[in-house]
Parts: sequence; structure tokens; C-alpha cells
Amino acid sequence: MKGLFITLEGGEGSGKSTAINAINEYFVSRGYKTMVSREPGGIKIGEEIRSVILNKENTMMTPECETLLYAASRIQLLHERIIPALNDGVVVILDRYIDSSFVYQGVARGVGIKNVERANSFALSYMPDITFFLDVRPEVGLKRLSGRDKMDRLDLESIDFHNRVYNGYLEVMDMYKDRIVRINGEQSPELVIKEITEVLDKRIKG
Amino acid sequence: MKGLFITLEGGEGSGKSTAINAINEYFVSRGYKTMVSREPGGIKIGEEIRSVILNKENTMMTPECETLLYAASRIQLLHERIIPALNDGVVVILDRYIDSSFVYQGVARGVGIKNVERANSFALSYMPDITFFLDVRPEVGLKRLSGRDKMDRLDLESIDFHNRVYNGYLEVMDMYKDRIVRINGEQSPELVIKEITEVLDKRIKG
Repeated sequence: MKGLFITLEGGEGSGKSTAINAINEYFVSRGYKTMVSREPGGIKIGEEIRSVILNKENTMMTPECETLLYAASRIQLLHERIIPALNDGVVVILDRYIDSSFVYQGVARGVGIKNVERANSFALSYMPDITFFLDVRPEVGLKRLSGRDKMDRLDLESIDFHNRVYNGYLEVMDMYKDRIVRINGEQSPELVIKEITEVLDKRIKG
Repeated sequence: MKGLFITLEGGEGSGKSTAINAINEYFVSRGYKTMVSREPGGIKIGEEIRSVILNKENTMMTPECETLLYAASRIQLLHERIIPALNDGVVVILDRYIDSSFVYQGVARGVGIKNVERANSFALSYMPDITFFLDVRPEVGLKRLSGRDKMDRLDLESIDFHNRVYNGYLEVMDMYKDRIVRINGEQSPELVIKEITEVLDKRIKG
């Protein structure tokens, strides 16, 4: 495939949106065609699947079922949008992808990374060329989101969950050293963008 | 698990319903608790997933997405209904199960049996104790369905598809020799039930 497949990963408040805009800007200003998206990516089947996942009445849904529904939505987006775009030479920039399933279902919900990999085996042929992990510790990210210095509104259970997600990212980063690039997301946005730009410069020249 | 997990497989017009009633009767008359079902088994999440699969507007759906949606519906039914019933000692009798995915998505739609297995890896820990394959050649089964001797209303494409399904069953039967019991479904219903009863008698005494 002629295009470039870039994904962004990180916990809540890690600054993915800012980074995505900067990456898009980087390629557009150099004359590349780009596509910025996030699962389910506005495709009808994906939206229908997502509405089953998010239906608040579906309290019985097991993490395994959730894992397979995300995998179904993902493979459809891949076939309908991402692969055709990459074949057309487009730079595809996705806000979260398969690593989020590894971390959220695999680690935080206890399904296991290897099991999530198997459930996503169709997608394993289409792994990103580069994944940026915006490394922001949960307590820092959550403070950013709340816009305050004090965390009194965030209960302990929620912090526990975000810690599991963070540790999950560290584990997944270790499994995919060649693909995942860690960016220190606790720096100023300018420095984050500078780090990302250096990685992209190298990649494009390479 | 204390119960017994029985599944029925076969193409269109292979007589699964008749066989299921006979199997249910067999166990009920011997004082067993039974549960007869078919995917999605009346569970809410399964019905929602099924409606995404069957939505006629979703013409873009790839066989891989379909495979994962069936797998999602299946694992939910397993966790919500089948496993609890088996743990309670119930005889669970299912009209179609994972072999139908191997055959319909894996072979007839070209996804590949091994790929369907991977997509269904959560379910592989809960394989049936016995699977009855009602062996009826497609031309015989389809004639039964149409209730006539002539097949003029069935177009060639459809026959092709049913032939792929039939060959798929033969392939899957070969992969799972120990689990899948072939029953000659072209005999009279009385003889079909006699064959099944002999298998069940052996199993219960064993």
C-alpha cells in the first residue's frame, strides 16, 4: 500500500486531538492527501455496531462480546475506508485503533492481550506504520480534563481504571517496540508537536 | 460442566427441526432438564447484533465483519444462557452453532475455516459434546423445501452456494471427527431418529 497509516493512542486528557491536528497539518502543508478519522469512522455498519455497544440497557454485555463487536466495526472500517485510502496513497490518521482494544478490553477489562489479538486477527494484516503513544500519567491527564488542580470529583474506582489503562499502554508499547513511538505528552503542546515532527521527518526521508 | 451440549448441523431441508424435537423428547422422557435454542437465542444483545447482520441496507458488510458479529452474538449467548444451563446440569440442544460459521462464512463465503476459528477463539473452550450432522445432499434438501420434484425455481447460483455449504460440512466433519456424528439424513424420519437414539444411548451409558 502506498499511503501511510498513523494511529494515535493515549489515555483521557493525553492531548490526542491536538497531536492529530498537528500531524494532519504537517502532511497537508507538504501536499499529501490525508484522511483523519476515528472508529467507527462514520460508516453506517460501524455506527450500528457502536450503538449496540453503547446501549445503556445492555448491562449484560460481556467484555468478550464487546471485544468482538469492536473488532467487527474495525474490520468493516478497514475494508470500506482505510485500505482503499491507503491504496490511493492517502495518509490515514486514526484517533485510536487496535491498541485501544489491547489496553481497554485486553488489560483494563481483563480479556487478555493475546485473546484480543486473536479476536482481531483479520486486522493484524493491517497494522499502522507508526503509532504515537502520548505518555501522560493518569493523574495528570484527568486533572487536565477537569480543568482544575484538585481531583476531588474523581472517585478512586475511576482512578483505578485509568491506572489499569495506563499500565496497559506501557505493556503494549513493550510488545510493539518497533511500531509504537512514545511521546512525552506532559510537555507543552509545542514540544509535543516538535517531537512528533522529528519522527515524521525521519520517516518521510527514510 | 454437568450438562450435555448437543448441536445440530446441516444444510437447508436436512431435517434439523424434526431431529431436535426427537432429541428433546428423548431427554425429557428420561427426566432430564433440557433447553432447546438457536442463535441468537432470544437474548437482547444477540437480537440487536442479528438485526445489524440482517439489515438489508448493509450491503457493504464484508464476510469478515459478518463472521465477527456472529462470534459476538455467540459468546454472549454462551455466557448469558448456555454455560449457566450446562452448569445446572441441563441438556442444551442448539439448532446450529460454530460449525455453521465454519461452513457458511469460512467455506461458502471464503473467509477460511482457520480464520473463523480464530475469530471464535472465545467459544473454542465451549465446544459441543456431540454434534449431529444431518447429511442430505443439496439437491435432495432443496427439493424437500420446495415440496416438488422439479427444481426450476432454484437458480444455478443458489445451487452453487448450497453445494459449497455441503462441501464445507464434509470438510469440517473431517476436521472434528471425534465430535461430529454423521447421520444419513436422506432416510425416513423414523430411521434418522433411530440412528440418533443409538448414539445418545451409547453416550448416556458411557
